[in-house]
Amino acid sequence: MENIKHRPLILVTNDDGIKAGGIVAVVRMLKSFGDVVVVAPNQSYSGMSHAITVKVPLYAKLVKESEGLKAYKVNGTPVDCVKLALNKLLDRRPDLIVSGINHGSNSSISIHYSGTMGAAREGALGGIPSIGLSLLNYSYEADFTHAVMFAERVVKHVIDNGLPDHTYLNVNVPDGMNVKGMKVVRQAHGRWVEEFVEREDPRHRKYYWLTGHFKNLEPEAIDTDEYVLSEGYVSVVPCLLDATSHPVIDQLKGLNHELQVQ
Amino acid sequence: MENIKHRPLILVTNDDGIKAGGIVAVVRMLKSFGDVVVVAPNQSYSGMSHAITVKVPLYAKLVKESEGLKAYKVNGTPVDCVKLALNKLLDRRPDLIVSGINHGSNSSISIHYSGTMGAAREGALGGIPSIGLSLLNYSYEADFTHAVMFAERVVKHVIDNGLPDHTYLNVNVPDGMNVKGMKVVRQAHGRWVEEFVEREDPRHRKYYWLTGHFKNLEPEAIDTDEYVLSEGYVSVVPCLLDATSHPVIDQLKGLNHELQVQ
Repeated sequence: MENIKHRPLILVTNDDGIKAGGIVAVVRMLKSFGDVVVVAPNQSYSGMSHAITVKVPLYAKLVKESEGLKAYKVNGTPVDCVKLALNKLLDRRPDLIVSGINHGSNSSISIHYSGTMGAAREGALGGIPSIGLSLLNYSYEADFTHAVMFAERVVKHVIDNGLPDHTYLNVNVPDGMNVKGMKVVRQAHGRWVEEFVEREDPRHRKYYWLTGHFKNLEPEAIDTDEYVLSEGYVSVVPCLLDATSHPVIDQLKGLNHELQVQ
Repeated sequence: MENIKHRPLILVTNDDGIKAGGIVAVVRMLKSFGDVVVVAPNQSYSGMSHAITVKVPLYAKLVKESEGLKAYKVNGTPVDCVKLALNKLLDRRPDLIVSGINHGSNSSISIHYSGTMGAAREGALGGIPSIGLSLLNYSYEADFTHAVMFAERVVKHVIDNGLPDHTYLNVNVPDGMNVKGMKVVRQAHGRWVEEFVEREDPRHRKYYWLTGHFKNLEPEAIDTDEYVLSEGYVSVVPCLLDATSHPVIDQLKGLNHELQVQ
């Protein structure tokens, strides 16, 4: 961990697109902490996970420049935005990356599908303290007032204390104003169920819309993001870049194999 | 873990598209283990990570049906293919999901960008033993002979023994025929560097192509996938669905907060 001595540079992105209410609300708050550069998709990239764009080139258009604030829109994914910012658009290394505030939950296993969290993970891969923020309200007109208040608390903590190496934060905020507080917890084990609506097109070909609902597979556990969110608390899950299941390495030693040299 | 008693059903997908050499090679081998259903993208979806398609509906077209083998192509990502297979296309729950064999490495942090590994992770999220397979050769004409031999060994182990819950495998095979054996290891910590080529279009607008090379940030560590691959071994990394950094939960307890009820 390392404290920040100069005026911080904060990179902001999201997956709902540069005009979304969540990013506008968080940028307003972040300007009190430092210089802010927004590099965000030119449209919604929900469900894009950690995807990168390899088939088409990326354009970055400067859409706003004022005292302490610059904003670029990019024809790419949230992860593309972070890569382009770190490698081409920023004139110095940012002290913090904030992704969001997302319109909708990214708790539990939704971290794997989320473009918001992909961007936060990409920031951590670049060695920069990174936070993904989400509000449990999918509406375009959602009220981010209280989400910003808790985001501010997390941002202040990270600017003051840094984050452990190879770690980024998944912060989810319950909808509505009756939030009770904030808890640092683990990711709940869950799954998405009933995921397709079936239709027929005018040429009588079947097609499918992805849909479904989330199910918490350990509703009794009280130390998970799903549980504390259901109790009215903001959840903060510290997340790892290392996907290895270390205890299982030894369980699988039967797979170790040396070919005989002939 | 649970042994399989009936003739196994194996779901196969990839991110290089249904016509790629790697999937054709692995399907030929898998037919000796059970009934095989291929549900794969109709084109290349490299770098799509765990992305899902939410803006357009999905079509699945049956393109092959013979004794013990069916194949569908889908206009979606690898994760879409797994979801559609599990929810709509398969008539029973598969015993195993194989994703690949990918044309190119998915070791170390590339797991986060990889559509191949996204599909394997989605299989594990569905509670099914899942394996992602990759060969360290990007060429469309790569020779998969020895990769298939090691894939067969891993598949046999998983069919005989299952996998621990919430775990999936990331298997990478060195290129060339001088492979020395196979080792179960952890994911190396690394990063992608120098990631954009800058060009100008005919209208004098700058654009960027994503590129770069991988750097192993712990080359001295001998228990990583990068190390054993460089030594000529197949790497097997058991991976977790849980992204939580458990030891950090306690380090961040300063973020826990109870609002005063007024």
